[in-house]
Amino acid sequence: MEYSIRPIGHIEKDDTGIYLVIMSEFWDATTHVNLFSHLIVLWWIHERDTPEDRQTLVSNPPRKKGAEPSGAFSCRSPSRPNPVGHTIVKLIAVDPENSRLRVDHMDANHGSPIIDIKPYLPSSDRVDGAMVAPWFKDLEPRYTK
Amino acid sequence: MEYSIRPIGHIEKDDTGIYLVIMSEFWDATTHVNLFSHLIVLWWIHERDTPEDRQTLVSNPPRKKGAEPSGAFSCRSPSRPNPVGHTIVKLIAVDPENSRLRVDHMDANHGSPIIDIKPYLPSSDRVDGAMVAPWFKDLEPRYTK
Repeated sequence: MEYSIRPIGHIEKDDTGIYLVIMSEFWDATTHVNLFSHLIVLWWIHERDTPEDRQTLVSNPPRKKGAEPSGAFSCRSPSRPNPVGHTIVKLIAVDPENSRLRVDHMDANHGSPIIDIKPYLPSSDRVDGAMVAPWFKDLEPRYTK
Repeated sequence: MEYSIRPIGHIEKDDTGIYLVIMSEFWDATTHVNLFSHLIVLWWIHERDTPEDRQTLVSNPPRKKGAEPSGAFSCRSPSRPNPVGHTIVKLIAVDPENSRLRVDHMDANHGSPIIDIKPYLPSSDRVDGAMVAPWFKDLEPRYTK
């Protein structure tokens, strides 16, 4: 069994900011996006879409001191069976003229394909008191006080 | 451009619970998953993998009174360009003998393919004070007080 994913846009980073550029034929899918402060961006880690990376089931979480080798489903390694990236971003501005959304940050590289965007809903997406592996405990929180 | 996704498992729901059943060849990717309390599950909304659903850019958010028709990227409609479902779950138990993870809930139907699992990291995945469209404001929170 195999499913097909098509890009709905791509990441752009330049001196003026960071953008989710939406293909014009998908722009209508952003209707009312301005009513949300944060978005879930699913993107394709195209640099890691190789047979080797997709067969890497255990790896060292990058830049985590003391981390034990972890399964792809237990860390955020870009080497995973399906190279889907997941990043939560803050929406800064909607720019219909250039069919793009300006956001505050993006760990995907310039040019990375975007495959889906979802509004962040605290009711289902926010977790209080989540437990994580020890090597993830000292990470600087991005959107919490 | 087109990318290929393969299932890494599927959802099982029976009288004993709700499970993320992992294909045995991917089980090593769960190494250390027991160190996390919550997981991000990406699954394939296979019932909506039709040309019509994938071309539905604007729809009515299901079961939301007063909701205005919204773009696929501004609601969680299962009809979207790439039918990827996103659900945060609580991990209840790791069951290596049956290569499955027991979880507390799952909005995907029994039999739905799973395409990725990621550990929930509060540092990047939790947002305090997110703004949402008015029709999403009264949703019952699942994992917050």
